[in-house]
Amino acid sequence: MNSKLHTLLEEKFDEMVQIRRYLHQYPEPSFKEFQTAAYIRSFYDKIGISYRANVGGNGIVASIQGGNPGPTVALRADFDALPIQDEKDVPYQSTVPGVMHACGHDGHTATLLVLAKALFEIRDSLHGKIVFIHQHAEEYAPGGAKSMIEDGCLDGVDAIFGTHLWSLTPTGVVQYRTGPIMAAADRFEITIKGAGGHGAQPHKTKDSIVIASQLVVNLQQIVSRRVNPIDSAVVSIGSFVAENAFNIIADSARLIGTVRTFNEDVRNDVEKEIERIVQGTCLTADASYELSYTRGYPSVVNHPEETAFLASAASQIDEVHTVEETEPHMTGEDFSYYLQHIKGTFFFTGAQPEGVDAPYPHHHPKFDFNEKAMLIAAKTLGTAAVEYLREQAPSKNVIKAN
Amino acid sequence: MNSKLHTLLEEKFDEMVQIRRYLHQYPEPSFKEFQTAAYIRSFYDKIGISYRANVGGNGIVASIQGGNPGPTVALRADFDALPIQDEKDVPYQSTVPGVMHACGHDGHTATLLVLAKALFEIRDSLHGKIVFIHQHAEEYAPGGAKSMIEDGCLDGVDAIFGTHLWSLTPTGVVQYRTGPIMAAADRFEITIKGAGGHGAQPHKTKDSIVIASQLVVNLQQIVSRRVNPIDSAVVSIGSFVAENAFNIIADSARLIGTVRTFNEDVRNDVEKEIERIVQGTCLTADASYELSYTRGYPSVVNHPEETAFLASAASQIDEVHTVEETEPHMTGEDFSYYLQHIKGTFFFTGAQPEGVDAPYPHHHPKFDFNEKAMLIAAKTLGTAAVEYLREQAPSKNVIKAN
Amino acid sequence: MNSKLHTLLEEKFDEMVQIRRYLHQYPEPSFKEFQTAAYIRSFYDKIGISYRANVGGNGIVASIQGGNPGPTVALRADFDALPIQDEKDVPYQSTVPGVMHACGHDGHTATLLVLAKALFEIRDSLHGKIVFIHQHAEEYAPGGAKSMIEDGCLDGVDAIFGTHLWSLTPTGVVQYRTGPIMAAADRFEITIKGAGGHGAQPHKTKDSIVIASQLVVNLQQIVSRRVNPIDSAVVSIGSFVAENAFNIIADSARLIGTVRTFNEDVRNDVEKEIERIVQGTCLTADASYELSYTRGYPSVVNHPEETAFLASAASQIDEVHTVEETEPHMTGEDFSYYLQHIKGTFFFTGAQPEGVDAPYPHHHPKFDFNEKAMLIAAKTLGTAAVEYLREQAPSKNVIKAN
Amino acid sequence: MNSKLHTLLEEKFDEMVQIRRYLHQYPEPSFKEFQTAAYIRSFYDKIGISYRANVGGNGIVASIQGGNPGPTVALRADFDALPIQDEKDVPYQSTVPGVMHACGHDGHTATLLVLAKALFEIRDSLHGKIVFIHQHAEEYAPGGAKSMIEDGCLDGVDAIFGTHLWSLTPTGVVQYRTGPIMAAADRFEITIKGAGGHGAQPHKTKDSIVIASQLVVNLQQIVSRRVNPIDSAVVSIGSFVAENAFNIIADSARLIGTVRTFNEDVRNDVEKEIERIVQGTCLTADASYELSYTRGYPSVVNHPEETAFLASAASQIDEVHTVEETEPHMTGEDFSYYLQHIKGTFFFTGAQPEGVDAPYPHHHPKFDFNEKAMLIAAKTLGTAAVEYLREQAPSKNVIKAN
Repeated sequence: MNSKLHTLLEEKFDEMVQIRRYLHQYPEPSFKEFQTAAYIRSFYDKIGISYRANVGGNGIVASIQGGNPGPTVALRADFDALPIQDEKDVPYQSTVPGVMHACGHDGHTATLLVLAKALFEIRDSLHGKIVFIHQHAEEYAPGGAKSMIEDGCLDGVDAIFGTHLWSLTPTGVVQYRTGPIMAAADRFEITIKGAGGHGAQPHKTKDSIVIASQLVVNLQQIVSRRVNPIDSAVVSIGSFVAENAFNIIADSARLIGTVRTFNEDVRNDVEKEIERIVQGTCLTADASYELSYTRGYPSVVNHPEETAFLASAASQIDEVHTVEETEPHMTGEDFSYYLQHIKGTFFFTGAQPEGVDAPYPHHHPKFDFNEKAMLIAAKTLGTAAVEYLREQAPSKNVIKAN
Repeated sequence: MNSKLHTLLEEKFDEMVQIRRYLHQYPEPSFKEFQTAAYIRSFYDKIGISYRANVGGNGIVASIQGGNPGPTVALRADFDALPIQDEKDVPYQSTVPGVMHACGHDGHTATLLVLAKALFEIRDSLHGKIVFIHQHAEEYAPGGAKSMIEDGCLDGVDAIFGTHLWSLTPTGVVQYRTGPIMAAADRFEITIKGAGGHGAQPHKTKDSIVIASQLVVNLQQIVSRRVNPIDSAVVSIGSFVAENAFNIIADSARLIGTVRTFNEDVRNDVEKEIERIVQGTCLTADASYELSYTRGYPSVVNHPEETAFLASAASQIDEVHTVEETEPHMTGEDFSYYLQHIKGTFFFTGAQPEGVDAPYPHHHPKFDFNEKAMLIAAKTLGTAAVEYLREQAPSKNVIKAN
Repeated sequence: MNSKLHTLLEEKFDEMVQIRRYLHQYPEPSFKEFQTAAYIRSFYDKIGISYRANVGGNGIVASIQGGNPGPTVALRADFDALPIQDEKDVPYQSTVPGVMHACGHDGHTATLLVLAKALFEIRDSLHGKIVFIHQHAEEYAPGGAKSMIEDGCLDGVDAIFGTHLWSLTPTGVVQYRTGPIMAAADRFEITIKGAGGHGAQPHKTKDSIVIASQLVVNLQQIVSRRVNPIDSAVVSIGSFVAENAFNIIADSARLIGTVRTFNEDVRNDVEKEIERIVQGTCLTADASYELSYTRGYPSVVNHPEETAFLASAASQIDEVHTVEETEPHMTGEDFSYYLQHIKGTFFFTGAQPEGVDAPYPHHHPKFDFNEKAMLIAAKTLGTAAVEYLREQAPSKNVIKAN
Repeated sequence: MNSKLHTLLEEKFDEMVQIRRYLHQYPEPSFKEFQTAAYIRSFYDKIGISYRANVGGNGIVASIQGGNPGPTVALRADFDALPIQDEKDVPYQSTVPGVMHACGHDGHTATLLVLAKALFEIRDSLHGKIVFIHQHAEEYAPGGAKSMIEDGCLDGVDAIFGTHLWSLTPTGVVQYRTGPIMAAADRFEITIKGAGGHGAQPHKTKDSIVIASQLVVNLQQIVSRRVNPIDSAVVSIGSFVAENAFNIIADSARLIGTVRTFNEDVRNDVEKEIERIVQGTCLTADASYELSYTRGYPSVVNHPEETAFLASAASQIDEVHTVEETEPHMTGEDFSYYLQHIKGTFFFTGAQPEGVDAPYPHHHPKFDFNEKAMLIAAKTLGTAAVEYLREQAPSKNVIKAN
């Protein structure tokens, strides 16, 4: 049956590419993916696959019932784009100024749509039920996963699989990892409130730029001294703004940054340490502050059995020459929420463009990926779902009521 | 003769106020004081005092030849305004949006014009020659003094006196100081050039915000460790800008600041130390930088004899109840250039508004001053000039050729 | 056969305790373990086990040839003590002032000696050959392992097992880990050479304390910014000394510290970054420096097959209730050298004293361990060796009686 | 009369040198100057000048009553030595290991003794009374001045003069200054109390070396940001000690330093800022601290009239070619206490050794001074005293001989 599915997917590869390129030309930013959602609905309408629209926002949940009894597996693809100007010189370049599929979600969506179409054709031979979660707004917290779950997208689902096409990993490689595979990604803002004045009279001021600079230096000690070296943590300041005339001492300074962790205890500790350090640094200079710490997506923590299962499924795909454990990524993903509710795994499908030694990273204005990776992703997700359902299905002798 | 001059000035005080208020309503920023210059010319035209216009820019140099032989003394007033929105609620509020006489130059000009008018009336009794330097562009480097000197405004001048109305000093107080009375005010810009990247992957970047913060901290050591504690120096950063998304590591960061010193050796040392510290801090982080250091006005260094003379002249003025030595100011003035060429002194004329305990400082949107201080300034400058000329004049017995 | 070995070890447990307590009373520091070596030799002499003495120093290598063909496995125990004053109140307290077995090497040695005695009794039933490496000088770089290897202690050996009794882990737990289990431990010394002087005249000096303090702060950025957050690294300064009168500015300051890493690339990077940061910090202050970086033991990197084998062996021991993966330890061990030459694994044998909630850590003056853990260690090492040899033995001998 | 005094002093110059060299060979540290005090007493005994011994410790107060009525003037010389090993190669080298007159107090004492002898010879012609204060323990707080004053050494005294021989100023120069001439010199000790541990596990510790280093860096901001740039202040750390093994994280770190100021408000502010910065820095790291701040001698603040008088007296001395205003010194002196009670002035007598371009500074093991400067000091002090007394004498005695 797998070979049947694989053959179907190979036959539909051109359609996959067309869908992907169409979506690439008409990207929509997070929470505004109205046309993209309409496109997905219309795709399912044409085939006759049933779905629920506006799930937790712009989300769509389609499903196929197999001909044999069995549990339910979900596959997920996100479909929002980024506020980045497309600088690629390709026919399928974005037509929307300042918006671009710079992370491959167009590919995820094309993959899942065509996979659904192929599975629909062999639905009689399938066990259980396959749910297709088309998620909006992965790029922008609070993300779409949370609200889709609250709106029932996981109801009755036993396990979930998802993948990210990854332009920095060679095509033909599939990367899995048990436990944390992507980081918790938090955001904080700090405003140092000193007291401004003339640059020639520092003693009448509380110099916010000096205080904030001292703070940036002090924050380095969280990772270097206060986190177990065995654990991973990042504290980065992305923005430091205190703009005044050259001869003015700043009244205030504003820092914005991010924290990345894999472990919830470490995350709590880092948040606490940031507050302590801001407090102490301000006391040192008799200044005050405002601090807000916003938790982003939690760490994506893969379940061991489903991860092992996925790795084994991937190794059956012809185009996959390597299945390997990956280091965890310090970047975030709201796939984490699904895995807090049900079992499952998230993996990376290598998608490095052919003949390119130094591919552009995700979120780069010239980002692109190898479209053949979509076929690999479709086969891997499809195989994992089909086999997981068959394996978990009640033994064929069992007469089941539902 | 002084009592004559003083009486004349008292009689013309109302005119002084009218001129000042007119100028206050029509301020012009540095180097664009075209109408103000026209106003001054027209004033002198009406009286019949000869002058030279467009001296080194918008500058005007008028002069009166006394009836008796003697040397030449110059008196200086600046007439440019500031790019500040007038927020005072007074009838003579600025009519020009975003431009304001927030430093008292309107008062300086009214003082000098009316003083010239009064001295013109008693010119026969005067010794030597009095030159009235109406200087444009004091507020903005390179300033007007330098170009006016290059255009000959000091030619044949033996000594110069100038004053600043000072709203933070009580009216009735005159403040002098031998040696440095106002600081050299320099400006520097530093761009730290690290290497940007994703906030979750600091090891692939050179974090410009951390480097620039470290630099700000390191720069504190110039004043604390490398300048003789007996000397004065200030190094202040007014602007620190590295604006990015919260999850990005900054590619570059830009600092703009000022250096204030009184002593030329200290000034040179501080400039050298800034470069060394920028260099070392960047080496520490394997980053590069751009540094530009622009010298502003040098320190205003008063000559001892002329300062003593001025202090003595001030003590003869009825409205002056206190003549005192002042601490040097860390702010700058391009009067310094005149004193690099000829002898003279610069002093402060207290101008605190009556009944105001906490007057607004100079450059504040609500800045104002006590107009009576203009009379004091006119009397002090006039008395100093007249007496200095008489004292320095050839003994009356000397038969002189010219 | 295992049950035979286990029974023998249980019978000889009292002897094990006696040996351990004797050694505990007569500790000798690293490289000076002459009497301890004599004790070990005399033990083997009495039984008739052959050995080679003075291997690479005070090391002793004994061996037992089994009755059946097979490869060779080595077991290792270290036997040096520490320059610490024993503060325990026990009958077997150290009798040597300032020297103490504060890390459990006395236990390692007692374990291995008695295990050798037991194995000798069942030698006819064994496959291959078992080598007992009694290593001197583990506590003090360059350590004894390196010179013992150079002197041939691993010649003909196919695999090696070793353990550390661990007072902080409950007795009954055995902890393994594939890959890095203990860190590379390096040492560095930095002397900042500024220029001293009177505390009241900082501008005539280069303040070594300020420079060295700045350096300590700057070094934090290695871990926080320059090491991949996925990797582990520690840079710690243990000693900062610049001792002068209160009113003197320090001519020089001396820092001594340690670097811990698991990955050789990270280790190289950290060493390079330290040099760069010292260089840049000194340039910032126009100071000079001396830096020496001494590599200690490399990371202990366990081989996957032998680790899995050991974990399985441990699970067969009655007294072991838990076999678990451990986090890597940031501390070092020269067992690393053996694993650079041959396959093998190093593991921890829980040895927390009974009824003690907060056991004293290793190297503490009151350190002690649960002696029952020696029995567990002996059984685990013995079982691993015996079974490994049998499993790896040539298959033709497979017809077996037991 | 002055010429008489000057001649006498010239005649006794050899004796002055002998006394100085004798004292130089037998130095005694602060508060232990028993033999030196005995020497001074014996000197006065021989001449027949009356004195009071053991004043406030080892102090001696001699006095001469002039033949004419008048007020009382005191002259002061200190006589303690320093705990420094004399490294000079001269016949009069210190014979006491580790103790040395490295600041010139031997010269001060020789000067005052011989001056007293000379004045005693012309006592009939003198007005008023001259008091000779031989003060012990100037080098070590709390110093001898305070206790001598408490023990009455200034009772009935109207004015005081004192000088310091200064090896860094050319012989023939006398330096005066109105207002602050020497700094307030305070001492502080800070113990940072973190939490120690193994260098490989920073997250279980509070790293005292990092905290103390951060503190040293933070303290720089007192002078750079919180003191008026017009004022002078120094904060220097002389000692930073946290000595441990390379792989240990320090439990505590100890800093000792000094603060120098001229102005009591600045002094108070700096003390307060140190506490605030220590507090904030410790809060930042969740550590605690102990801080003690000990006020040393206050600033030496000269009175204007006596300073002018002294400058005028100095200009009458043949050997003095320059009388000049000096910059204030950042070093301290307990002469300050005398000037808090009565009028007077403290000045510097240039004592640079002949033919030496780069003389050794005070407190250097090779420190020495030009003995001719003692003659200049004696003449200046003597002239000032004699003339001050005559000028301040009651006018009815105006019938004068010379």
